[in-house]
Amino acid sequence: VYAGATMQDASFGRSGTDALTPTVDELRHAVAVAAGRSPADLLLSGGRLLNVFSGLVEPVDVAVAGRLVAAVLPAGAAPFAALERVDLAGAHLAPGLIDGHVHIESSLVTPAAYARVVLPRGVVGIVNDPHEIANVAGVDGVRWWLACGDGLPFDLWTTAPSCVPSTQLETAGAELGVDEIRDLLAHPRVVGVAELMSFPGVVDGEAAQLAKVAVAEGAGKSVEGHAPGLTGRDLQAYLAAGIGSDHECTRLAEGVEKLAAGAFVMIREGSVTRDLDTLLPLVTPRHADRVGFVTDDRLPHDLLDEGAVDVLVRRAIAGGVDPVYAVRCASWNTARHYRLPRRGAVAPGFFADLLVVDDLARFRVQRVLKHGRWVAGAGATTAWAEAAIAAAAGAAERMPAAAALRGSVRLPDLEGSALAIAAPPAGRRVRVLRPLPGQVVTEALAVMPPLRDGEVVADPDRDLLKLACVHRHGRSAPGTGIGLGLVAGMGLRRGALASSVGHDHHNLMLVGADDASMRRAARRVAELGGGFVVDDGDGIVAELALPIAGLVSDAPIERVVADLAAVDAAVRALGGSGSDALMTLSFLGLAVIPALRVTDHGLVDVVAARLVGLEA
Amino acid sequence: VYAGATMQDASFGRSGTDALTPTVDELRHAVAVAAGRSPADLLLSGGRLLNVFSGLVEPVDVAVAGRLVAAVLPAGAAPFAALERVDLAGAHLAPGLIDGHVHIESSLVTPAAYARVVLPRGVVGIVNDPHEIANVAGVDGVRWWLACGDGLPFDLWTTAPSCVPSTQLETAGAELGVDEIRDLLAHPRVVGVAELMSFPGVVDGEAAQLAKVAVAEGAGKSVEGHAPGLTGRDLQAYLAAGIGSDHECTRLAEGVEKLAAGAFVMIREGSVTRDLDTLLPLVTPRHADRVGFVTDDRLPHDLLDEGAVDVLVRRAIAGGVDPVYAVRCASWNTARHYRLPRRGAVAPGFFADLLVVDDLARFRVQRVLKHGRWVAGAGATTAWAEAAIAAAAGAAERMPAAAALRGSVRLPDLEGSALAIAAPPAGRRVRVLRPLPGQVVTEALAVMPPLRDGEVVADPDRDLLKLACVHRHGRSAPGTGIGLGLVAGMGLRRGALASSVGHDHHNLMLVGADDASMRRAARRVAELGGGFVVDDGDGIVAELALPIAGLVSDAPIERVVADLAAVDAAVRALGGSGSDALMTLSFLGLAVIPALRVTDHGLVDVVAARLVGLEA
Repeated sequence: VYAGATMQDASFGRSGTDALTPTVDELRHAVAVAAGRSPADLLLSGGRLLNVFSGLVEPVDVAVAGRLVAAVLPAGAAPFAALERVDLAGAHLAPGLIDGHVHIESSLVTPAAYARVVLPRGVVGIVNDPHEIANVAGVDGVRWWLACGDGLPFDLWTTAPSCVPSTQLETAGAELGVDEIRDLLAHPRVVGVAELMSFPGVVDGEAAQLAKVAVAEGAGKSVEGHAPGLTGRDLQAYLAAGIGSDHECTRLAEGVEKLAAGAFVMIREGSVTRDLDTLLPLVTPRHADRVGFVTDDRLPHDLLDEGAVDVLVRRAIAGGVDPVYAVRCASWNTARHYRLPRRGAVAPGFFADLLVVDDLARFRVQRVLKHGRWVAGAGATTAWAEAAIAAAAGAAERMPAAAALRGSVRLPDLEGSALAIAAPPAGRRVRVLRPLPGQVVTEALAVMPPLRDGEVVADPDRDLLKLACVHRHGRSAPGTGIGLGLVAGMGLRRGALASSVGHDHHNLMLVGADDASMRRAARRVAELGGGFVVDDGDGIVAELALPIAGLVSDAPIERVVADLAAVDAAVRALGGSGSDALMTLSFLGLAVIPALRVTDHGLVDVVAARLVGLEA
Repeated sequence: VYAGATMQDASFGRSGTDALTPTVDELRHAVAVAAGRSPADLLLSGGRLLNVFSGLVEPVDVAVAGRLVAAVLPAGAAPFAALERVDLAGAHLAPGLIDGHVHIESSLVTPAAYARVVLPRGVVGIVNDPHEIANVAGVDGVRWWLACGDGLPFDLWTTAPSCVPSTQLETAGAELGVDEIRDLLAHPRVVGVAELMSFPGVVDGEAAQLAKVAVAEGAGKSVEGHAPGLTGRDLQAYLAAGIGSDHECTRLAEGVEKLAAGAFVMIREGSVTRDLDTLLPLVTPRHADRVGFVTDDRLPHDLLDEGAVDVLVRRAIAGGVDPVYAVRCASWNTARHYRLPRRGAVAPGFFADLLVVDDLARFRVQRVLKHGRWVAGAGATTAWAEAAIAAAAGAAERMPAAAALRGSVRLPDLEGSALAIAAPPAGRRVRVLRPLPGQVVTEALAVMPPLRDGEVVADPDRDLLKLACVHRHGRSAPGTGIGLGLVAGMGLRRGALASSVGHDHHNLMLVGADDASMRRAARRVAELGGGFVVDDGDGIVAELALPIAGLVSDAPIERVVADLAAVDAAVRALGGSGSDALMTLSFLGLAVIPALRVTDHGLVDVVAARLVGLEA
């Protein structure tokens, strides 16, 4: 906790409010400060502003009035009375950063915990897509997630998840149709419809997909895109529907094509997919208004150690991009794309969300002002921000919906032969999933199965393990809801891993060398209300609790990172590849990416888009 | 009427609609055309597109589906089946032009007549501010004006007039308060609150002004600015309120300051105020997204002979601006500023509003496509567009509100001594207005008055004429509503001029050498329901009827221009300066610009902001 920043608290209360746009009283105060009738609440003098409008770096004084910037004038041009003065001594000023596309759930923490870790890095708001929460808990879950933003010194903009469930070959915790999306779009912090991942459906002209566009457009909000590799006529068809952006470009030519076709191109630098270096040539003055920076998915340790959307700004500058344009891509461009009111610039009438950057080349953020308050400095949140975040988190935790989200792992009976796989006729091969290293894609093998007592079993010597996807949302009929198969390449010599994170349906994913270990791990996940669990064959040896919807922790990110490290070590001790093994496991149920998957319905041949039997 | 363009009519009906955003059926059709499942309704091949996103000129084929662009692909990249094909043979393609700020009333015609004259110039939509109509007819008048856009092959975007009346020292036909503005903002074609002209009120923090901002923001719409010469802290205060633009810059430094402070700077080239040459250096790639082009006010003959917002594009190109950026300032930039859905670019999913330009250097518009239909070619509207405009105008004319607007000139009794000015005590000077040539400003003189029979009278030998402002909205008490005075510099040797256009209240403005001529001219204006009338001392010798609200003609612009020419000639024959005399007269009641004015309340000292007596 940064200690030096509670000076302004006494004066702030006058206009403190959680509203997304200023009140008339706030406007009157800002106008009076600019005109010189009232003292500024805070005067930042002698800074060098990265002006996203002029594209220039300008020496300025900035007068803050309540939550707003009242005036930005040439340094020394006008005397300002002020309740608090800070001499920036030539440091740079930049607008607070805004990340245009984030799945917070990938960082395994709540919005409050996320805000706490990214605010010191200069990130004052994000547009998040709670796709995972929606798959577990539907509209109620998304509403609670939105409520997690209430009172935070951080803008939790949200897009309405558009593709829940991802396929009909699984049973997620909920469905979101056009009516639910329309319902969510009425929330003032819901700024659009989230990435329309079913791009084949859009290109095919499916009425259900086009209706989502029409609903968003009727609400005056955006529809975001997701079209990896789409080109030519198919890309034109996708955009013709009215999709406004894409964040899945992995090649420069793809970025150029999408930008020219009118898409706002969001350059992504996540934990796994890293596109910045490839796409950086898109950021030139000629196109600079059509590019945004996003992180999409960041693992907890990357978020903590490396950073969030500030990583892209820093690396873009290092890559030779004019710092004003690098900052624009993570502020004004994104704010304008989503029509975020009075965000994304340091200018009169804008919310006073700004950064003091003492080393522009390295983009080292010294202090962060959010809505006119110091929320971070020297790499940590201020005491005030810490308290505000804790209060917001507490209020969210006390909501009835929070209790419901904690009971989200409801398993069927796994005793007896529930996890048993009957042997195929003698001499027949069976299908086996094999995840490709470092990718989300799997390949489908056909192997002679290890057999024992008329059952297919694991054989660690051949690196074959049993794999199960167990319905955990309480929505499957008795005797159904367990998909079984074999997986190769996971490396475990014994024991089992269990995860309540299982994309996108988030049923319980289980892998193991024996049924007893798998059952123990599954039971432990259920006891935790969700999480990652490692069983070494004799008992539970490591775990990360993810009690909220079985997806995210209720602890600070430092605790999550520490627990994950313990889980990693335990997995490695069993022969597996640490946390990669759990991430790999969480994607083995993703029935929209080739080739073979297991959902709670059974084995899925993704290319054929149908359930298949074990026998190859 | 351009003859060559009804080919597409047969296929158009499928998706013809007046909706501002596409229906799901229209989307499905566009997606199907792009993907190759359906033939395009129109294929434009071999054009060179001015791409407002990439900033480049690109050889392309454009497939149109109903009202929408379905696909824009590299020339020859994909075969398209099409119901109609046009080979552009290397001509340029540009998005249809959009003018960001227009008072149509200054052109003395209806929206339909305005559309008819500007469509062949490539202008497919405007953001108009019906400030004059609002002053005469309030919300009902604005609603009718909006209805004039229904069915037009032209986008009549509208901003809600923000300052009606302009002052409390006049009685206009109506008042528009915050409630009326909120009401208008609910209309889907009302895109914001119009120029907040009372910038001193904003800078002073007047609650009434700030409430207009809050209402617009609550509706997710913009608030436009009007702040001539405002700089420094006052400018910051004005923008701090949340004003998003300005179109009153007359100096480059003013434009630079406003742009850097976050205002969208609209460069204006009207009939009187011409700022383009001065401000053109603002249009560079570094700021090019923050500049728009507007005409504000264009006189009928300028609109007909010189053009509309196309004038700015043409002159910007001639001035050395990259044509793609010149076009952007009159299309995408403006569309994005106002959040006009799917307008301002030629790209998949955008409305098919585009221009074929056969000479880029001179920006000569060959053909114009609006919502997928050919609406103009070779300088004239197509037969289809002509019919559509006539139908829309007819429908507007049949609305009950239209009849009410035709009865808008209701004069008090002007017989007897109604126009008489009692002589001041002997030897006392009186106040005299003198308009400064070529400006809207007047100066206040103090002269010994011409007297006869105990009355102040005109004396053409001294170039002193009687001036009256007669309330004409039926809202003044009996015996009140006539302001009287003397004016110098109008040049008439005899007779009288009358105008029902009288900024901003639009009471009847009268100037003359004798009361009988003034009465005849006034009566004739009332008979016409509004207009400009010239009486030569013996009777009416020329007139332009402006029967709609006393502000605009119901005739085509060619007729208006011809009638104005006759009025000009008649005024010149009397010693005056032609149509300038009527324009000058129409501004003599503008009680917000120094120094001396006459309203229906009497003489106004604008600087002191109060009514004053005749005696100096």
